[in-house]
Amino acid sequence: MLEKVDLTKKLSKEEYKEKMPQLEAKLGRLQRECKSLGIPIMIVFEGFGASGKGIQIGRLIQSMDPRGFEVHPIKNETEEERMHPFMWRFWTKTPSKGRIAIFDGSWYRRVLIDRFEKRTKNKELADAFHSINSFEEQLAEDGTLIIKLLLDIDKKEQKKRFEKLEKNKETAWRVTQGDKERNVHYDEYAAMIEDMLFKTDTDYAPWTIIESMDKRFATLKIYTTVIKAMADQIEKVQKEKTEGTAGKTEGEMAEIAREADEEMKELQVSILSKADLSLHYTKEEYKEKLDKLQKKMEKLHGELYRRRIPVVLGFEGWDAGGKGGAIKRLTERMDARGYVVNPTASPNDIEKAHHYLWRFWRAMPKDGHVAIFDRTWYGRVMVERIEGFCTTEEWKRAYKEINDMEKDLSDAGAIVIKFWMHIDKDEQERRFKERQENPEKQWKITDEDWRNREKWDQYEDAVNEMLMRTSTDYAPWVVVEGNDKYYARIKVLRTVAEAIEARLKEE
Amino acid sequence: MLEKVDLTKKLSKEEYKEKMPQLEAKLGRLQRECKSLGIPIMIVFEGFGASGKGIQIGRLIQSMDPRGFEVHPIKNETEEERMHPFMWRFWTKTPSKGRIAIFDGSWYRRVLIDRFEKRTKNKELADAFHSINSFEEQLAEDGTLIIKLLLDIDKKEQKKRFEKLEKNKETAWRVTQGDKERNVHYDEYAAMIEDMLFKTDTDYAPWTIIESMDKRFATLKIYTTVIKAMADQIEKVQKEKTEGTAGKTEGEMAEIAREADEEMKELQVSILSKADLSLHYTKEEYKEKLDKLQKKMEKLHGELYRRRIPVVLGFEGWDAGGKGGAIKRLTERMDARGYVVNPTASPNDIEKAHHYLWRFWRAMPKDGHVAIFDRTWYGRVMVERIEGFCTTEEWKRAYKEINDMEKDLSDAGAIVIKFWMHIDKDEQERRFKERQENPEKQWKITDEDWRNREKWDQYEDAVNEMLMRTSTDYAPWVVVEGNDKYYARIKVLRTVAEAIEARLKEE
Repeated sequence: MLEKVDLTKKLSKEEYKEKMPQLEAKLGRLQRECKSLGIPIMIVFEGFGASGKGIQIGRLIQSMDPRGFEVHPIKNETEEERMHPFMWRFWTKTPSKGRIAIFDGSWYRRVLIDRFEKRTKNKELADAFHSINSFEEQLAEDGTLIIKLLLDIDKKEQKKRFEKLEKNKETAWRVTQGDKERNVHYDEYAAMIEDMLFKTDTDYAPWTIIESMDKRFATLKIYTTVIKAMADQIEKVQKEKTEGTAGKTEGEMAEIAREADEEMKELQVSILSKADLSLHYTKEEYKEKLDKLQKKMEKLHGELYRRRIPVVLGFEGWDAGGKGGAIKRLTERMDARGYVVNPTASPNDIEKAHHYLWRFWRAMPKDGHVAIFDRTWYGRVMVERIEGFCTTEEWKRAYKEINDMEKDLSDAGAIVIKFWMHIDKDEQERRFKERQENPEKQWKITDEDWRNREKWDQYEDAVNEMLMRTSTDYAPWVVVEGNDKYYARIKVLRTVAEAIEARLKEE
Repeated sequence: MLEKVDLTKKLSKEEYKEKMPQLEAKLGRLQRECKSLGIPIMIVFEGFGASGKGIQIGRLIQSMDPRGFEVHPIKNETEEERMHPFMWRFWTKTPSKGRIAIFDGSWYRRVLIDRFEKRTKNKELADAFHSINSFEEQLAEDGTLIIKLLLDIDKKEQKKRFEKLEKNKETAWRVTQGDKERNVHYDEYAAMIEDMLFKTDTDYAPWTIIESMDKRFATLKIYTTVIKAMADQIEKVQKEKTEGTAGKTEGEMAEIAREADEEMKELQVSILSKADLSLHYTKEEYKEKLDKLQKKMEKLHGELYRRRIPVVLGFEGWDAGGKGGAIKRLTERMDARGYVVNPTASPNDIEKAHHYLWRFWRAMPKDGHVAIFDRTWYGRVMVERIEGFCTTEEWKRAYKEINDMEKDLSDAGAIVIKFWMHIDKDEQERRFKERQENPEKQWKITDEDWRNREKWDQYEDAVNEMLMRTSTDYAPWVVVEGNDKYYARIKVLRTVAEAIEARLKEE
C-alpha cells in the first residue's frame, strides 16, 4: 500500500483557507450530534516519526468542544503500565458514550516501535495482532467508531525534519536515538507498517493513509476523513433507531457524508495520473531490446522450471491498452509446455455457482509453471463494482480477499505480479477507430467497448483505489505506460525478467 | 474446551432406534430444500485418529440423495497438490450452489497432523490460521454453510481401537506409525486441537465437539448438529428473500430448528451434573487442612510478590453457593496490601457508558498482586443473557471476547482461575431459609434471590455452556462441590496453592 502513495500532494494556502472554515463548522456540528447519540469515538494517529502527529492533533481539536474529548499521548510505558498486560492501558482509556479519545501513538506501537526495537519478540507478534484486532472488533461491535490515520512522509523529508528539530535547542530533545535509527532503517520500518496494514486494515476499523509531506494537505485530508466517518456512523445509528418507524428526515448526515466523499475523491491519490505516457522507444531500440529480453526470458523460464518456482502474472488495463500484444511478446520464445494463458471472460454457469475466486484458484500454476491471466480476479473491483454485478459490501471486502489469496500464493513460493496497461483517452479513441477501420481487427471492437469508454472516469477512480489497496510487497502492481506499444512491451518483459532474476539470486 | 467434554455420554439401542428415523427423514427434506435454494454446504470431520470419522460419514450420507453430495477424503498431498499452494486443493473442492461437500479430514491438517509432524513450521502457523479463517469467512459471506465437527475420544479408547484394528489383517494397514505416535503423545496433540479451537471457532464457522466414545451417541449428535445448522441457514435465506414482501409461511424450518435445539440441549454435556456433591470433610479434617493451607498461602503470596506474578481469581456460583466464605478463608492470612477483592454489582452509569469488559480491565492486578472477583465478567453470559439485558448476538460473541481477555492476561504472565461454587437446589433452599430465619444473615437474602431460583434450569443450561466454552488451558474453570462448605473452602485453597506452586516450579 505504502509504495503506491503519492507523496507529492500539495494544497495551496488559498485553497486551504477557502475550504477549512466549512470543515471546521461541520466537525463541531458532528461532535455535538455524536454526543447526543452517545457514540464513543477513538481517533488513532500513527505513522513515521516527525510526520506531524502532534501538530495535526492540535489542528483537529481546534474545532472540537474541549469538554468532549481527551488526548492520550502514548509514550514508553510507565512503571504502573509495565506491570499490567499490554492492552490494559488502552482498555482503561476507551471513551465513554458520546466522548472522543484521541491517541497520539497507540496500541500499534506493539507491532511498530516495540517490534523494531525488539521489545516485541517475533513469536509474540501473532498474539499481538490477535489482541489488537480483538480489541478493535469488540469496541466496534459495541458501537465505538474507530478512525485510524497513518501519517506518511518519505525518508528524505523525515531526515530533514529531524535535522531541523535538532538544530534548535528547544526542540532537539524531541529527536531520540530511536527516531534516528528508524530513519536510517526507513525501509525496514516501512515494511513493518506494511505488515501492520495487511493484518489490521479491517472493515470494522479501517486505516486511512495521510500524505503528510505538505501539512495543509494532511490537515484537509484528516478533517475530511474524520467528518466522513462520523457522518456515516451517525447515519447508521439514526437508521437503527428509526427502524420500523416512519421515515424521519436523516437527510443532513447523508448530505455531509456525500460531500465528504466528493472531497475524498479529490484528495485521493491518483496513481494513474502520475504515469508518464510520453515514454517510448524507436523501432530500432525496440527490436534490439526485445531480442535480448526474449532470449533472457527463454533461459529464465527453464531456470524457473528447474527450480520449481511458480509464477502468476495478471494483466489488466484499459480496453485496447495492449494486453494481448504484451502477452504475445512475453511468451513468444517461452516453452509452450511451461506456461498457460488464461483468458478471463464473463463467468459461465458453473463458475457463477461458486465463489468468484474459485475459477482463478483452479487455474493457479503448479510449481515451476507460469500462469498468465488476460484479465483477472480484479474484475470484482472494476467491472462488477461499476456495473453493479455485485453489492457494495462484496466489492469492498474483495480487496482483503484478493490480498489474502495472493498472500497464499506468495507464501507457497510464487512470484506474483500484476500489470495495469495504461493509455490515455485519446490514444484509446485512436486505437478503437483503427480497429473499426481495419477489417482484420474489427472483431476486437464491440459496442460494449464504446459504452465502457463513456464510464472512463468511474473506472479511473476504481482503478486508483484498486492499485492503492492491493499493491503489496508480495504481489505488486506495475503501471505500464502504454501509449507507445514498444515501450509497454519492453517494460513488461523487463519487469518479469528482473523479478525472476531477483528471486533466483535469493535462493 | 476439551477438558470439560463429558466422554461418558451413551445412547441405548432403543433410544437410537426410536429417534433416528425422524432425523433421517428431516435430513433428506433439508437437503432438498438447500438444493432448491442454492445453498452450498461444507461439512468438516476432524478429530482424533480412530474416533470414527469414516463410519460417521457413512451414516450421515445414508439419508442424503447421492446426486447432491461428494465425500473428499483428505490424506497426504498428491504430487500435483504438493506443487500448489496449500489451500489450492480445498478451494478447488468448494461445492457449487445447492451441493454438499463432506471432508474426511480437511484444511485443518495443516495445524494438526502437519503441525504435529513438524511439516508445518512454527513460524508458518500464524499464516496458516490466517489463511484458514480467511477461506472460511469468504465462503460463509458468499452464502456457504460451514459445519465443523470435532470427534473426540480419550487416549485409552484410542489405543484400544488401534489395537483392535491391528489384530485384524484386513484393517491393520489403517493404523499408521503417525497414529500411534499421536496416541503416545495424546496430550500434546490435544493441546494443538485446543489451540485450533481457540483460533478458528468463529461465528461464521463454529466448531461442534462430538463425544465419540459411543457411536450411537455420536451419530445422533452429528445428525442433530447438521439438521440444526441447515434449518437455521434455510430460514435465514428465506427471510432475506422474502424481506419486504408479505409474511410467507416459513414456519416449518423454524419448527425443525426448534426441535433440533431441544434435542441439542439433551445431548449437551452437563458438566454440573457430574459434580459429586456428597464430598465433605469433618470439622477436624477441615481445621487441620485449613490451617496448613492458609500457612502455605501466606508463604506463596509472598513468593508471588517477590517474583512479580499477577493472579486473577474469579468466583461465580449459585446464590448462597458459598463464594463469600471461600474468599474469606482464602485471603484470611494473606497480606492485605497484596490483594484486592472486587465485588461486582450491577454496573453504574459510568460503567454502563463503556464496553462491559471495561470495568474489569480497570481492576486487573499489576504484577505481583492478586485480584479476586466476587462475581465477574461472566455475568454477560448468565444474568444478562437470561434476563435479556443484552442481545443474543452480544452474549454469543462474549465467549470469544472473554477468552481473548483472559488470553491477554495469561500472555502477560498472570495465573487465571475461575471457580464455580456449586450446590444443589435443595441445599440452596436450606441456606435461603436459614438466612431468612437468622436476623444476622437476613441482609444476605432478597426477593431477587428467590426469583433467580425459579430460573434454576435456565441458569443451569447457561452455566454448562459457559463452562464448556470458556474453560481453557490458560484460564481453567474449576467446579467446586459446595454442598459441604468445609470441602468447598479447602478445594478452593488447595487449587489456588497448587496453581501457584506449579507456576513457581516452571520459572
